[in-house]
Amino acid sequence: MKILVLGAAGMIGRKLIGHLLERGELRGQTIKSIHGFDVVDAEFISTDTITVSVSSGDISDASTVDALVESKPDVIFHLAAIVSGEAEAEFEKGYRINMTGTQNLFNAIIDRPGYCPRVVYASSIAVFGAPFPEAIEDDYHLTPLTSYGTQKAIGELLLNDFTRKGHFDGIGLRFPTIVVRPGKPNLAASGFFSNIIREPLSGLSAELPVSEDVMHWMTSPRSAVGFCIHAAEIGTNEIGPHRSLTLPGIAITVGGMIAALKRVAGEATTDRIERKPDETIMRIVANWPRNFQAERAESLGFEAEKTFDEIIQAHIDDELGGRLPD
Amino acid sequence: MKILVLGAAGMIGRKLIGHLLERGELRGQTIKSIHGFDVVDAEFISTDTITVSVSSGDISDASTVDALVESKPDVIFHLAAIVSGEAEAEFEKGYRINMTGTQNLFNAIIDRPGYCPRVVYASSIAVFGAPFPEAIEDDYHLTPLTSYGTQKAIGELLLNDFTRKGHFDGIGLRFPTIVVRPGKPNLAASGFFSNIIREPLSGLSAELPVSEDVMHWMTSPRSAVGFCIHAAEIGTNEIGPHRSLTLPGIAITVGGMIAALKRVAGEATTDRIERKPDETIMRIVANWPRNFQAERAESLGFEAEKTFDEIIQAHIDDELGGRLPD
Repeated sequence: MKILVLGAAGMIGRKLIGHLLERGELRGQTIKSIHGFDVVDAEFISTDTITVSVSSGDISDASTVDALVESKPDVIFHLAAIVSGEAEAEFEKGYRINMTGTQNLFNAIIDRPGYCPRVVYASSIAVFGAPFPEAIEDDYHLTPLTSYGTQKAIGELLLNDFTRKGHFDGIGLRFPTIVVRPGKPNLAASGFFSNIIREPLSGLSAELPVSEDVMHWMTSPRSAVGFCIHAAEIGTNEIGPHRSLTLPGIAITVGGMIAALKRVAGEATTDRIERKPDETIMRIVANWPRNFQAERAESLGFEAEKTFDEIIQAHIDDELGGRLPD
Repeated sequence: MKILVLGAAGMIGRKLIGHLLERGELRGQTIKSIHGFDVVDAEFISTDTITVSVSSGDISDASTVDALVESKPDVIFHLAAIVSGEAEAEFEKGYRINMTGTQNLFNAIIDRPGYCPRVVYASSIAVFGAPFPEAIEDDYHLTPLTSYGTQKAIGELLLNDFTRKGHFDGIGLRFPTIVVRPGKPNLAASGFFSNIIREPLSGLSAELPVSEDVMHWMTSPRSAVGFCIHAAEIGTNEIGPHRSLTLPGIAITVGGMIAALKRVAGEATTDRIERKPDETIMRIVANWPRNFQAERAESLGFEAEKTFDEIIQAHIDDELGGRLPD
């Protein structure tokens, strides 16, 4: 079992490779090698049985991507992308990486007749744009209203058609917003969803730029890694022609998140959240989807946390050594 | 007013340019020049006031397309495409022309800051795939099940996003099947819809490969040209973020078409239709959409025939000099 991870230095990429190294097998086969590619070199340490290699470059360069596929990895995780805010600000760069890069990967595969890997493609709930129904169903239309969403929707369409023609066996994953993201606060408009949990848990203050009735669709980094593994392992015959799945998550308001944090970590922790309304972020968030029915993914065995308390606990377990800081 | 037509040698392209030459104006401005581009040179004759030029080449070559946009045409009709059957059989060629060619056009426009032409993009009802509701509504999901439909859906998504960002002012037209196509019978799976009208009207026999209860969505070549003109002229502010329109047409069964032919041209004409069931064509046609609600396009002033008798009459007027052959 040879595995290729594009976007290896990203949050999910790093956690996924770490998990694969612990696991040692995928699809019932012993993992022999993992190659991690990103725009910067990631750092991973080989184990006794698994050789880990890394390289860096630009996926909009066809020959770079072609070389990555040369060894015919059995499973390819394509997590590489320019994120939403940057794709909106840098129009040409977003298309170059998110569309051309994806085309380069798919073309590199079809240029090798007889080669038919499982391709796990990171899509996004950004393929959906307002106005939304109360809860977005599995087969809601592709109606992106951002460049990032457009690029991800194009990737989904290509994934369907290349899979239908037997060029590879693709599954697209529409990740919920991942909360609690580890690391430092970042400038992503969605960053506050993580910040208001992670920072207070570390004894630091965090700003809340929206009102407590804002609802959003979330899952933990741990579930995101689990989705990738499950997508690599399940049989795909039952999926049908539309290969991208809306993944399970939790629809919860900011108020609900804060109540959960209080239950898990106490009022001294939630007191570190500072209300600081930000009109710009409020306007952006107002256009985001709030709730989904992920019945198709659930029926295919994709699993996520059922409560936000569990999402907080996953962060405490995975990032804080299982206990609250003093 | 300078006009560029990509796909100038195709059926709609030729008729559109002929109509523009007769009209002499577009968007209230006198037409000064029309350039027609296709994979083969088309033939058009300049008028006293309008210079017509033609060239041929491959739209998957970025520099070729860039040169076409160099003169900054005010309106661009992008009708160039590998058709459905060929895009399915020639996977790589279909993507090269239908996707890369379209990207090349859009990129050539954004490479010229301050230039913002009206772009009329020929999409297709092939962006929709089975299972269908009884009548497909304007905002039905993009669910293509063919390579051609996938490529057209990708073009629609790009058109939306490039328009949203102000790079051009795009309108996509999801043409119904065009009946009666002039010329010789062709091998397209949909060819029989035209053949069973055109050939008998010319005293020749035609084969009917499906049963009379097959229903489909059609409009005339004359209406197709009218759609292009209207798309070039209307204000687009009221269209909203989803720029592709399902166009008006007639949902009619093959039996209904034959009854109309009998009304217009008599039983001696319909007797020239030979029932010759073809399992392959029946299977293909079973996956095609049958009926639409084109309310958005109608509310924007797009008009088509209301009866199939009118579609037959349009063919007699435009192709047969207004009278039935003896």
